[in-house]
Amino acid sequence: KELSLAPQLMSFDRAKMEDSLKRRFFYDQSFAIYGGITGQYDFGPMGCALKSNMLHAWRQFFVLEEQMLEVDCSILTPEPVLKASGHVDRFADLMVKDLKTGECFRLDHLIKAHLEKVSSDKKATQELKDECENIVVRLDGMTKDEMGAIMKKFNMKSPITQNDLSEPMEFNLMFATQIGPTGLVKGFLRPETAQGIFVNFKRLLEFNQGRLPFAAAQIGNSFRNEISPRSGLIRVREFTMAEIEHFCDPNMKDHPKFVDVENYEMILYSACNQMDGKSAMRLTIGEAVKTKLVANETLGYFMARIQMFLIKVGILPERLRFRQHMGNEMAHYACDCWDAECLTSYGWIECVGCADRSAYDLTQHTNATGIRLSAEKKLPEPKTVEITEAVANKQVLGKAFKKDAKAISDLLAKLSVSEIEAMDAELNSNDSYKLHLNSDVTVTINREMVSVKKSSKTLHVEEITPSVIEPSFGIGRIMYALLEHRFQMRDGDDQRCYFSLPAIVAPLKCSVLPLSNNQEFAPFIKQISSALTRVDVSHKVDDSSGSIGRRYARTDEIAIPYGITIDFDTLKEPHSVTLRERDTMGQVRIPLDEIADVVRSLAYSKIQWENVEAKYPKFEQQEATK
Amino acid sequence: KELSLAPQLMSFDRAKMEDSLKRRFFYDQSFAIYGGITGQYDFGPMGCALKSNMLHAWRQFFVLEEQMLEVDCSILTPEPVLKASGHVDRFADLMVKDLKTGECFRLDHLIKAHLEKVSSDKKATQELKDECENIVVRLDGMTKDEMGAIMKKFNMKSPITQNDLSEPMEFNLMFATQIGPTGLVKGFLRPETAQGIFVNFKRLLEFNQGRLPFAAAQIGNSFRNEISPRSGLIRVREFTMAEIEHFCDPNMKDHPKFVDVENYEMILYSACNQMDGKSAMRLTIGEAVKTKLVANETLGYFMARIQMFLIKVGILPERLRFRQHMGNEMAHYACDCWDAECLTSYGWIECVGCADRSAYDLTQHTNATGIRLSAEKKLPEPKTVEITEAVANKQVLGKAFKKDAKAISDLLAKLSVSEIEAMDAELNSNDSYKLHLNSDVTVTINREMVSVKKSSKTLHVEEITPSVIEPSFGIGRIMYALLEHRFQMRDGDDQRCYFSLPAIVAPLKCSVLPLSNNQEFAPFIKQISSALTRVDVSHKVDDSSGSIGRRYARTDEIAIPYGITIDFDTLKEPHSVTLRERDTMGQVRIPLDEIADVVRSLAYSKIQWENVEAKYPKFEQQEATK
Repeated sequence: KELSLAPQLMSFDRAKMEDSLKRRFFYDQSFAIYGGITGQYDFGPMGCALKSNMLHAWRQFFVLEEQMLEVDCSILTPEPVLKASGHVDRFADLMVKDLKTGECFRLDHLIKAHLEKVSSDKKATQELKDECENIVVRLDGMTKDEMGAIMKKFNMKSPITQNDLSEPMEFNLMFATQIGPTGLVKGFLRPETAQGIFVNFKRLLEFNQGRLPFAAAQIGNSFRNEISPRSGLIRVREFTMAEIEHFCDPNMKDHPKFVDVENYEMILYSACNQMDGKSAMRLTIGEAVKTKLVANETLGYFMARIQMFLIKVGILPERLRFRQHMGNEMAHYACDCWDAECLTSYGWIECVGCADRSAYDLTQHTNATGIRLSAEKKLPEPKTVEITEAVANKQVLGKAFKKDAKAISDLLAKLSVSEIEAMDAELNSNDSYKLHLNSDVTVTINREMVSVKKSSKTLHVEEITPSVIEPSFGIGRIMYALLEHRFQMRDGDDQRCYFSLPAIVAPLKCSVLPLSNNQEFAPFIKQISSALTRVDVSHKVDDSSGSIGRRYARTDEIAIPYGITIDFDTLKEPHSVTLRERDTMGQVRIPLDEIADVVRSLAYSKIQWENVEAKYPKFEQQEATK
Repeated sequence: KELSLAPQLMSFDRAKMEDSLKRRFFYDQSFAIYGGITGQYDFGPMGCALKSNMLHAWRQFFVLEEQMLEVDCSILTPEPVLKASGHVDRFADLMVKDLKTGECFRLDHLIKAHLEKVSSDKKATQELKDECENIVVRLDGMTKDEMGAIMKKFNMKSPITQNDLSEPMEFNLMFATQIGPTGLVKGFLRPETAQGIFVNFKRLLEFNQGRLPFAAAQIGNSFRNEISPRSGLIRVREFTMAEIEHFCDPNMKDHPKFVDVENYEMILYSACNQMDGKSAMRLTIGEAVKTKLVANETLGYFMARIQMFLIKVGILPERLRFRQHMGNEMAHYACDCWDAECLTSYGWIECVGCADRSAYDLTQHTNATGIRLSAEKKLPEPKTVEITEAVANKQVLGKAFKKDAKAISDLLAKLSVSEIEAMDAELNSNDSYKLHLNSDVTVTINREMVSVKKSSKTLHVEEITPSVIEPSFGIGRIMYALLEHRFQMRDGDDQRCYFSLPAIVAPLKCSVLPLSNNQEFAPFIKQISSALTRVDVSHKVDDSSGSIGRRYARTDEIAIPYGITIDFDTLKEPHSVTLRERDTMGQVRIPLDEIADVVRSLAYSKIQWENVEAKYPKFEQQEATK
């Protein structure tokens, strides 16, 4: 059913695309001359330019347009920070080891692959098939013991050696290291960029003059020590994220710009529909928020903006959906989450997560450090509150308890109102009250040692811990999906593959191709190249031998959207050149002194190709393709 | 003598500047709410924007203008790569430990501080002072034993506890971790980005269609586990570098664009002048290359380009020099090296290194992997070479030596011409020759087992291992020097400090300030803000209370170069606003519908402030500063 959405996928040839990506060095395995490391990739000139254009577009679209506070925080993170965030204890995958070779397998992947094999066996009964499918669907939410039981039941062995496997064990996905020369300060490479923003919350709030809401953003690398990385760029050990943390009043999650997007249509796949086996629905984000399918306007606003951005950089709308997390798959910090998923040959893959992390992180860091990460909210009108305090008589306590006196008065200061009132009653009637200093020590205090003070105070502000809405972009995954979506073959000719990337992200905006290596063309090449550099248009001069058609094919393959050809007519006055558009292969003739500005306007989406075709004469010569 | 270059430095107040940087969140210590980690910093909105603008300018200036191949490689690097590069064995600093507390000190810093203290003692003789100074000058090139002897001689103790110190020990500066779940694959965080380029050399050469020279570039983070980081942004554990590796024929280090820069003046501080106690010299890079002070045109070209870039982003030319490394301080891979140094309150600090790494790295990786990292160079004319081969008779060898046969024929294939000839003579006379398979096994072969074949071959290309010229930029250090160079105080009033950063790198290009919070100004704020966003001008609306002068001061402090003020005249037709320039505090009146384009042109250096002042009427109203 999923695949019916995108018939083009049926003819998609992943090996062919990967061959193009490798050969033209978009990206390739890191350290290949040393045998390579799985889950690590190097971006070559084309991949690097694509990535950097995508990040530039992201910065324009989110940081600049929404005036977010962009930060750039440390990657190396000391242990206490990630202990507080929950990552030290819970950021783990289950794995099993081959008992003889020590090879490790990620347990859910192992189970899934095993059950798929069982199901596809000709002798499998319908009952068995249903059981397998049912397990696979529930896998994401299963505990260690449940998975262990399934392993046993199906008698799973190492898929490579058929050796016995260990019991399931948790493997923390963070890379550990030591900070400093003593070996005593344990640190990790951050598994997400978000924590850097949370620990800077007070500085950012102050930068924003104490006002809520505001959003902080960060682009940077994160690291996850995947057990057995596979699926190319989709599951890697080192990756670039672009994350936004939008801080807002937990009781005011409406958004002033929601009106701008409320009629925007999206494909939403709710948790309910997933559980009921129904499909995704197309509806406007306005309806989705109104019916409470999407929890609030801010979440909805960001979901719409995420979709706009993905489409802007070239993701195909018909292969994009937002899927709501089901309760059992939610990350430990999230209270609601929608993933922007792109359909690829690996299935639907998560490219952007949009989670409501509520006050989880700020609360955790507050508890860990004792520093309140909160904001002040002005009350609609001043409020008078009654205050009940237990006031220690330090002199008397000191005499009676010596070194324990401080601990006692600290404890008294922390008592709740009801505790204070109970104590007060007890002291009034018996002149004696037992305080538990800790699990071992109990002390008895009397009336003389503590008094109860009641007062009232007028408050103009209240302290609130903001909620956080977090759109989190996996840049490598978006790039991969984009490359699949935009991989094309001309007339079914697998020698003429190309990427129809939008100009905004294309690695290079323009090629400059002299018809031949005739020396008369040289000054024109230089002139055009300088003019393009002057207007910040990245370009590639291809003066190699080979027919012009062959060279067009080479530039198409690296997604260059526009090509300038210098031919013998260029030499004549008034000088002119041919400009060709990659997707339509349409060509026009343009005066030499206008070409750089035209390409610039096209590359930065100030004008469209149709405008250029309407303005300049068509160039009719056929492309020789061989 | 150094300080006489820059009288302004004398009045520089570092504490004052650091207060501004902290208060306005340019950058601050990472994880401060957890007590902080030394040598790690987070960039806040202003620092992050400054950094990202600087990197954007770098990419334009180097990658785009010179059509370099930009790559983006992995940070996590497996051990064999860094073993080959020399970092595992040699990338270490000497340290000593407090024998009681375990605290670590970097030895050279300890010695320097100790000797400076000794020298400054009133009772110190001139002889003692001279000795101390002489040691400090030679410290960079000293061995472990030499430093140990000095420690002993001066009886150095821990400067903090006065406890005894350990013997000097080497501490490797790389952060170690394990890649993957088995714990068997040791990896490091890269200490420089360069190795990622070297291991991709073959792919890059192919991308460049096999042609030399070409340059690859990379922007990314590197990590060094400094023993005791200090000096703020100058010595940190995690930092962004921008590196270029220019690959060229070792015999052709001239550069086609050198003519464009040869008259460019620079301040060069040669190794000779340093040794002779002379000062730096001002001369053109053309003269420097002609006199062989700078080794070749390519090195010289990059030095000139580095200087141009630094000045473009705002480094003051009078606080910039290029210092040549002395033989004893050269990194293990370099054969010549010039550092672009900026004068700061910490003294002259290295901001950019420009090294000739010769063929060191490619050779090392070739040796480690057996994969030849070389290029083919077309010979001026085909060359005929004589080839002498030892050809094994595999059948006879197999019968005689069974499983050792393959090792023997492999060894035969590797013999040099002289070895073959010696063997041939021996076999002809004795029919017996001893081959050492390895240190344990020697075999005796006879005439029947091997023949010698002579032939000739015509070569059209020769294989060469390219030389590498490497400009390597420390982005954080450049930023720090820039902030010091551009920190200003108006009329000596320390309440009116600001940063006169050039618009190209200023965090925000423009402020929008309504004169008061009158509601009639609101639609104009919105209109101007949208217009600025449309033309990609980052800006900040400051509608907080406070006089306009006070708000100007606030925006000056975060280096915003242009300010738009909306006042009551703006409400009248034809609508107009005031535009103010930060450094001169000059103001002009500009029509509302022209303002966004004017600011855009200023921000992107298409026009200068003088042009704006000439075109639009001056606005005379005084700034109220309180």
